[in-house]
Amino acid sequence: MTMSATVPLASRDDLSLAYTPGVARVCEAIAADESLYPDYTWTSNTVAVVTDGSAVLGLGNIGPKAAMPVMEGKSVLFKQFGGVDSIPICLDTQDVEGIIAAVKAMAPSFGGINLEDISAPRCFEIERRLDAALDIPVFHDDQHGTAVVTLAALRNAAKLLGRSFGDLRVVISGAGAAGVAITNTLIAAGVQGANMIVVDSRGIIHAERGDLSGMKAELAAATNISGRTGGIAEALIGADVLVGVSGGNIPEEALAGMAPGAIIFALANPTPEVPPATAHKYAAIVATGRSDFPNQINNVLAFPGIFRGALDVRATTITDAMKVAAADAIAAIVADDLRPEAIVPSPLDPRVAPAVAAAVAAAALRDGVARRTPAPAPAQARQPV
Amino acid sequence: MTMSATVPLASRDDLSLAYTPGVARVCEAIAADESLYPDYTWTSNTVAVVTDGSAVLGLGNIGPKAAMPVMEGKSVLFKQFGGVDSIPICLDTQDVEGIIAAVKAMAPSFGGINLEDISAPRCFEIERRLDAALDIPVFHDDQHGTAVVTLAALRNAAKLLGRSFGDLRVVISGAGAAGVAITNTLIAAGVQGANMIVVDSRGIIHAERGDLSGMKAELAAATNISGRTGGIAEALIGADVLVGVSGGNIPEEALAGMAPGAIIFALANPTPEVPPATAHKYAAIVATGRSDFPNQINNVLAFPGIFRGALDVRATTITDAMKVAAADAIAAIVADDLRPEAIVPSPLDPRVAPAVAAAVAAAALRDGVARRTPAPAPAQARQPV
Repeated sequence: MTMSATVPLASRDDLSLAYTPGVARVCEAIAADESLYPDYTWTSNTVAVVTDGSAVLGLGNIGPKAAMPVMEGKSVLFKQFGGVDSIPICLDTQDVEGIIAAVKAMAPSFGGINLEDISAPRCFEIERRLDAALDIPVFHDDQHGTAVVTLAALRNAAKLLGRSFGDLRVVISGAGAAGVAITNTLIAAGVQGANMIVVDSRGIIHAERGDLSGMKAELAAATNISGRTGGIAEALIGADVLVGVSGGNIPEEALAGMAPGAIIFALANPTPEVPPATAHKYAAIVATGRSDFPNQINNVLAFPGIFRGALDVRATTITDAMKVAAADAIAAIVADDLRPEAIVPSPLDPRVAPAVAAAVAAAALRDGVARRTPAPAPAQARQPV
Repeated sequence: MTMSATVPLASRDDLSLAYTPGVARVCEAIAADESLYPDYTWTSNTVAVVTDGSAVLGLGNIGPKAAMPVMEGKSVLFKQFGGVDSIPICLDTQDVEGIIAAVKAMAPSFGGINLEDISAPRCFEIERRLDAALDIPVFHDDQHGTAVVTLAALRNAAKLLGRSFGDLRVVISGAGAAGVAITNTLIAAGVQGANMIVVDSRGIIHAERGDLSGMKAELAAATNISGRTGGIAEALIGADVLVGVSGGNIPEEALAGMAPGAIIFALANPTPEVPPATAHKYAAIVATGRSDFPNQINNVLAFPGIFRGALDVRATTITDAMKVAAADAIAAIVADDLRPEAIVPSPLDPRVAPAVAAAVAAAALRDGVARRTPAPAPAQARQPV
């Protein structure tokens, strides 16, 4: 990546305007009326991609420096698909309080915060507290980006199979960042929590388990109303949908208990929880996180458009309705040509991000978290420097 | 400003390379050998321009948001003159510990830290502690950028007037960030501290004053060996050089006591401490900070080349010798055509930054603070994304 100026600097007059003394007038205007800040600076089009390097891809806790290439790649995608200027920030702390303090301190520099590759359960508290403290969107992509694209894929899979979305019996294998967010987002979109079962490394999450706290305790209360117990095999008995976000291996015998014509999303990268060929024996529709199989569930379908839409209306936060709207916009792109191997658009489809942005902006306005209606021109065209 | 990618993203293969799964191999390489970090990421060409908005231009403590336009302008200049990718960071804290913690936390994201518009005396402790804690250069431009260009101008002024640089009797009016740094840099360059007098808002700084601590106590020990007391008029009696960095007004009567053929740099912006027309009555050479008078002392002559040179050799810090080398390189640009109204190059002279960078890199190598010899190609050409 590289930076570039949006104003010329060829003469002393240019220099006087972009820097001292001309810039002083811009500073004074903002000091007198802080509402001018997003109009007069590049911050309104700029997002920080922040990590502590604690949960990078499938590589685990490799630290902030080794995580930088992922943040740079993410920044390139933000620009390419969303027109968002994005700055990779790798933090030299993995302490929850240290991360929150650092992000709060740098927050005036940005129009949004994309948290990335921060391990669970720390990511939940960090996102919740930052979102409450800041007046700009805070979005942990490993949670919500994955959840939004999963929801989009599940909408289209249900439609294609003629199933009632609200009646789907869904099993989530994995209760980390993605598993928790997918569960909550599916519930927000209409799946009945009572019909959902979440499985972690110790088995089915249910209200009688004594080892649950925080988000997992919330999951126990919100899902699995029948109190089913056991492991993944018990969870899958009669299930319509399996979403794997565990990175583990799900044995073929367990899949055999699923309802006929099931839906299997095995999203672990690079090795899906179930090999696609095996999944197809039990499922009518299969998706993975990989680019070399059909139906790639890739966050790039979500985050550029979500932030583009949030920035366009200067949203103060990203609500559940904005996430659901993003998912529905992604799903709608391919709704006219649904096939079992094409339930989500290609990650490179240029129609996706603008459609997501428009849907997210509209949802922000409906939810009352927008500070303006979308502007006709991109934010950066109005910058003084 | 805006960001842009340095790699194409047109196909699924491009996406797989710049992002998952291809990027994982880059992460693993850095995790295995951290010395690869600057080669494999954009950080080696990237500097954070960090402020708390406490001392912005002549506007004072206008806060981080109102300071952003200055940081953006600075970032544009970094790119234009030094080819340095620079990120404006405005901090939502003016607490010394908070600033230090935030900058330390974000430091892995950058190849250098340019502190900007942070008020004295806090700026001294912040810079000193960050420079000690971090293995990348930390440079408070309001101190050292001003000092380097002032030194360059004074070298040429002395040369033009046939004066011995080491024997100049110098008065610095102002003991803030710039005044302290100019004093220290002139001493590092050969002016005798014994022959320097620094004046703050309470008068001449001398060892008997009971109100001095920190940097001012150090100045009292390092300067004014004769123990002169009084105000600016007493300080200027017999002085060869006046450097104004106070923002105040220096009465004409005080100038009358200076030695014949004096040098006056009245650097306050937008209103010099002495009107140039008045200064010319007493001085052979006059400089200001303004673009509409000859001899503009402008930091842009220094900081882009200083960071370019420091980044080129991956310096761990910026030493006094690097600053003096930068000043001498600036002075040398116009050394063949010295005139009283042309003792420094134009701020837009494209020869300056490359010459400064080369001199700074060489000085870093001599001082043992370089981690490599300069690379033939610019850093960004080697980035993976």
